[in-house]
Formats: sequence, structure tokens, C-alpha cells
Amino acid sequence: MEFLDQIRSFPEQIMSRNFFHIDRDFNNIVISGMGGSGIVGRIFSELYGMCPVQVVSDYEIPHYVNAKTLFIAISYSGNTEETLATVKQAREKGAQIKVITSGGELSKLGYETVKVPSGMQPRNALGYMLSPLLNSLMKIEQSEIDGAHEVLQTIERESSKLKQMAEEICSVGLVPWIVGYEPYVSTAYRWKTQFNENGKILAINSTIPELNHNETMPLKLSYGRERFYFISLGNPSLERTGKRLRITSDLTGIKFNNVKEYGSTMLQKVLSMIHSGDYISYYVAKIRGLDPMDVSLIEELKSRLS
Amino acid sequence: MEFLDQIRSFPEQIMSRNFFHIDRDFNNIVISGMGGSGIVGRIFSELYGMCPVQVVSDYEIPHYVNAKTLFIAISYSGNTEETLATVKQAREKGAQIKVITSGGELSKLGYETVKVPSGMQPRNALGYMLSPLLNSLMKIEQSEIDGAHEVLQTIERESSKLKQMAEEICSVGLVPWIVGYEPYVSTAYRWKTQFNENGKILAINSTIPELNHNETMPLKLSYGRERFYFISLGNPSLERTGKRLRITSDLTGIKFNNVKEYGSTMLQKVLSMIHSGDYISYYVAKIRGLDPMDVSLIEELKSRLS
Repeated sequence: MEFLDQIRSFPEQIMSRNFFHIDRDFNNIVISGMGGSGIVGRIFSELYGMCPVQVVSDYEIPHYVNAKTLFIAISYSGNTEETLATVKQAREKGAQIKVITSGGELSKLGYETVKVPSGMQPRNALGYMLSPLLNSLMKIEQSEIDGAHEVLQTIERESSKLKQMAEEICSVGLVPWIVGYEPYVSTAYRWKTQFNENGKILAINSTIPELNHNETMPLKLSYGRERFYFISLGNPSLERTGKRLRITSDLTGIKFNNVKEYGSTMLQKVLSMIHSGDYISYYVAKIRGLDPMDVSLIEELKSRLS
Repeated sequence: MEFLDQIRSFPEQIMSRNFFHIDRDFNNIVISGMGGSGIVGRIFSELYGMCPVQVVSDYEIPHYVNAKTLFIAISYSGNTEETLATVKQAREKGAQIKVITSGGELSKLGYETVKVPSGMQPRNALGYMLSPLLNSLMKIEQSEIDGAHEVLQTIERESSKLKQMAEEICSVGLVPWIVGYEPYVSTAYRWKTQFNENGKILAINSTIPELNHNETMPLKLSYGRERFYFISLGNPSLERTGKRLRITSDLTGIKFNNVKEYGSTMLQKVLSMIHSGDYISYYVAKIRGLDPMDVSLIEELKSRLS
């Protein structure tokens, strides 16, 4: 499938009815995943909230994992070495293990597995990997999902502003700095990684109100401020956070380029913002004349590691 | 107290015997704190591991907080509006609440409170605020603390390399990019915020192995790579992480400027690395002719918010 068609399949992906069974009670969730697979856990944890959720993007799981832990391993390829290492540890600790993957080693370990379609870049399969978490662990009305599907289909048509931003970013070689806040904290990280992976440009994300406690002074006083392109995502869920954003801009002289959200519920808004990040990072690759699909260095690194 | 003397008091601070009592069982910990106070929770959570620890640096606490939650509010001033908002919510949910502060509103709410010395910049009181967490929740031998005290006293004497790095950073206006990994993930964030707060320069942190899944391609292909100064912190706890660092450097051509750790235990190494970050960021301020103490814009922002 062409890269752009992979991006375009996102509205369909979130209609997936896949889910896993909860076999027994749990009092915490650990989601293990790297990169485009791990981001699924981060997005989910910001939407959930019914128990502690820790996302592990590393080789080792927390000491506390035990039989009361719901352990969800997400690896699109099914062969991610960090994720496979964590599953082995989770099994030794007796955790309840579920798997989301398109195949690979992970699909052969005998755990209940949600199989997602193969042949895509992991970062383009976010909807397929997120849906089973929403379906299994959150009670979301089908009408809300249908509404999200509708909203997401409008993003590409509305993306001329995103294309223009991509041009502003690339024309003088600026590094995007995405400012997130509830409910877009994980989405800001997703945008950063999409600029990295699709656009092959460095990118930064930070969070309001935390930003005010450390980045306010350097946003005014640091050399190099002019090398960044600051982006704010939609409207923060709290008015006082929005006030912080306006005052920060006022005090530092930094202009935050705002990206509009679509939809009416929090889930719809978050999904729409994620999808806008897919397009803007895709446009960056196109403007730079690079292949957004290219992951050659990561493949080379994996082969040198093994 | 002079700013440099505040930094120099860190070895003494970690000798603090302050602690709080655990009144009843808990199955998760939520630590609420912003900026220089919130970082205490992040450092602790990387060292702990006996149950889920979520650090909240925002106005709202997670939905799951209940009577089985140990809720620790950390605000050096005791007047941080975000932290005060979270304590109110935690009380409504019946959480077991503990406070670490030097005074302010937070000290007047009637919770068991560890009082730390006042009159410092919060970021310079990290040792005072971290000690009660270590003393109350982790069994650390006094000999390990004594050893840390000894190790930390050597950092300033050994800091000529740090001063040289600060000069390299400032001479051509580079933005520090600190690469962390276990056990230095939170320490990398601390370094970032110290460059921000003391040096008044922008700074970035990221983590291996997660970095390999998104930043590898742009570290090679992005414009603007030359505007950053990459720093790696000591030796990673896993050899395969070290191997990733070396291969990443090899594939991308990025030079990681390594900072040596001191001490023999993980706690000692982490504390030594934190303290090295205090000095390098202090040197940046001095080289730039700025006052590392200055937080005028943050004060202005707070007054405009209220």
C-alpha cells in the first residue's frame, strides 16, 4: 500500500471491532511497546484513568509487575527485541498477558493476540493498534466512534493550513517544537515522532503547565529561539491552561502556531489532532523530497545489534 | 544563601533524616509537583519500582486515585497553584496524603508534613525533598548514603570537564541535547530543566532505546543537527543500551559528549550525575553573564495568572 494510502486508512482503522478478553481482575496496566507501537499505549493512558497505566519503552519491566497486572505487549512487527524481552519477564511474574501485533515472534507465544493487518509502517497502523484497547477497556459508544470516523475523513480536505505550516517549517529549516497539554500531551509526542519518522527532521515536544516552571525564562532569553517553530495543539481542556499559553506568548514574544481540532468529544478531538500530525509530517517529507516510508538506518541499526 | 552555596549544600541535603509515616496499605503512589519540586518524584519513581508511581505535573489528578493511593504533594514554596488544586482533589477521593514543603499554604492544610529549610531556589533543594521519599519508602543503608555524601563532595573539584563543556556549548550558541537511559532517564530531564532554569538556554532530552525508533533517521538527515550539543550520561545500566549508543553515533555521525558518573551503587551514580548537572548549568549562566537565580518571568507569569 502506498504511504499516503496508509495514512488515509486511519478513519477506517478506528472502526475495528477487535478486542481481547479480560480473564481476571487487575489493579494496574503495563503496556510495553517502542516507537510507533509504544505511542499507542501513551495515547490510551491519557484517555483511560481507571487504574495506573505505565508505558514501558525499554528492555526491563517494573519490579511491581505481578499476577494483578494486565500486561499488554504491542509490537507491530512482532519482532521488536525490547518488547520480546519484556514479555518474557512479565510471564515469569505471572502477569495477565495480551498481545497486539501483525505477526512475528510475538504472535507465536501462545497469548491471546489481536492480529492487525500487516504490510504497513507501524506508525501508520495506530488506529488498528489503539482500537482493541478502547474496545476492551473503555466503554465507548459506537456512535462516538462513528462520529470520529466522519470527522477524520475531513482532515485531509482541511489540510491546506497544515501544508502551509510544513512549508513555513522547511523553508528556513526550522525545528518544530510542539506544545501539548491535556488532552493532547501524548499527541504532542506523537507529532514529534511523526516529524522524526516521516519528515526526517528533529522535533521537540513539551507540556503546559510544566513548561512554565522551566522553559519560560529560556523562551525569552536563550540564543537559538529563532531556530524553532512553535506549535500549539487545539484548545486545552482547562481554561487556565489556555491562559498560561497566552501569557507565555506575551511574556516571551514566542508565537505559537495553533492547529485546530475537529470533533465534539475528547476522543474525537484527540484522534483528529493525531491525524493532522500524520499529514503535516507527510508534507514535510514531500517538501524535502524525501521518502516518508524510509527507515533504512533503523533497519541497519537492528542488523548491527543482532 | 548565595546560589553556588545552595548548590554546594546538596551533599549535606541527602543526609537529611526526615521521613513520613505510612498509616495504611497502599497499592499505588501519586506524586504531585511542578518543575524543581516535581522532578523529585520523577527521580524517585525511577529508583523505586515496588508499586506504580505516577508523577502529576498538572492541575488534575488521575481518576483512579482512592483510599489505596499514597498521595505525596511536593511544593517547595507551598503555594504552587497546580499542586494545591491536586491536593484538594486527592482529599475528596480519600487518599492518604503526605506533604513535602518549606511552608506556604500547603503546610497549613493539616497533613503530615516534612518541612524542608526555606530561602532557597526549589531546584537547589532537591536533596532535602528527595530524602524523605527515600527514607520513608526505600530501605537504603546509612552506609550507602554516607558513601553518596562523600562522592558528591568530589563533584565540584572534578568539574573542570563540565566547565569546558559549558564553554563549548555557549561559544557558538548550541542547544544541549541530553540522551538518557536507565538509570539516568529522569536525570536527563533534570539536566534539561537545569540548563533551562540556571543557564536560561533551551535544552532537549531523549531516551535510548526509544530514540532509536524515531530519532535515528533525523539525527542523520535533519537540517539543523549542527545546532545541538549532544550529551550522554555515564554508562547505561544495560550493555545493549551502550551498544545502541555506539551504533547510533556511528550511523548518524553524531558525537555524544559523555559525562562520567561517580560512586558505586545506582543511587550514588544517579545523585552524582544530578549534581554534575547542577554545575554545568551554573557554568552556562556564568559564561553568559546571567544570574542563575533569576526567575523574574516566572514570577511575572504567576502574578498575571492570579
